[in-house]
Amino acid sequence: MDNRLRQQFEFIMEVDKLKNVLRMTKLIGESRTENTAEHTWHMALTAMALAEYVDTSVDLLHVLRLTLVHDIVEIDAGDTFAYDENGHLDKFEREKQAAKRIFGILPEDQAMEYYDLWLEFETRETPEARFAASVDRIQAVLQNHGNQAGTWREHNITLSQITNRLSPISESSDALWQAIQEIVQEHIDAEHIGQTG
Amino acid sequence: MDNRLRQQFEFIMEVDKLKNVLRMTKLIGESRTENTAEHTWHMALTAMALAEYVDTSVDLLHVLRLTLVHDIVEIDAGDTFAYDENGHLDKFEREKQAAKRIFGILPEDQAMEYYDLWLEFETRETPEARFAASVDRIQAVLQNHGNQAGTWREHNITLSQITNRLSPISESSDALWQAIQEIVQEHIDAEHIGQTG
Repeated sequence: MDNRLRQQFEFIMEVDKLKNVLRMTKLIGESRTENTAEHTWHMALTAMALAEYVDTSVDLLHVLRLTLVHDIVEIDAGDTFAYDENGHLDKFEREKQAAKRIFGILPEDQAMEYYDLWLEFETRETPEARFAASVDRIQAVLQNHGNQAGTWREHNITLSQITNRLSPISESSDALWQAIQEIVQEHIDAEHIGQTG
Repeated sequence: MDNRLRQQFEFIMEVDKLKNVLRMTKLIGESRTENTAEHTWHMALTAMALAEYVDTSVDLLHVLRLTLVHDIVEIDAGDTFAYDENGHLDKFEREKQAAKRIFGILPEDQAMEYYDLWLEFETRETPEARFAASVDRIQAVLQNHGNQAGTWREHNITLSQITNRLSPISESSDALWQAIQEIVQEHIDAEHIGQTG
């Protein structure tokens, strides 16, 4: 087999490790936390199911490509909890090193392409990246919603932290932003979320 | 929030259960078996990385849509082991019922669309469905390759069973079929696979 295909197969085997990276969010109704690989599938499916609500039309294939690749860096850099302020200080630098190593397993043209996809997701300067970031948040909100505000309660997350975290949705879709705010309001009413802090 | 979006959110929460469906294949170098959600992410990424090798040009977005949706039926129908002949006898009927229930949570137009995606994957009559079926097989081969032929050895799978299972690759890409046959040959040479049976 030629070297190009050998590198691609090696990459496919290497990224199997993403299934061992654990996030903070738990599966709905289950005690175990979600891993990043299954989270990424759920995000991609969410993007597919909700694409009709994006305000600026997006290339869904590009959204899916961004989504499928964006968290692979966590194999080296680990998952940084959405509300871990210290962890976010050096997140970009840690992930950049990871992107170089892991995508570097691929043939050079593909390595550059995947690095650019990761960077585009991180910088959120395109409608596709903003929508991908939105489905990342929406999927987490729906999991928390299915778990009586699980992660939010467990870590005493405040409304201002949640609003800040979810803000990319407002840059992508009015309809989704309104709907997600309704869900958050339900958890405020149920006293699952602190109003100050 | 309107009823359409409520149904879509309900569907997104329902399919979280795919993370609890276990397959026979183990993660590379790990003792736990893979679940179907993380497998689906891996398949989608594999399709993205290897799309250049397809003989008949395919719409990659459609391949990804087929891939992301095709195994959701396992929430109700369970995973049927690739080499379980009895399990395959009623697999289609079990999965059809599951498709009706689970996709039926979605608004009617989307329910029909997702049902059709599932059916297209199962019947393999389009180049996109054949390529999606191929990456399903390739991902499993690479996992077995990374685990010294793990599932093949554990279940005494013979060469003719493997060749039969992998045949969709030959209908999709000559280059990938040649490369996968090389990998299988390595495991024949290492006496990981029985030649008869």
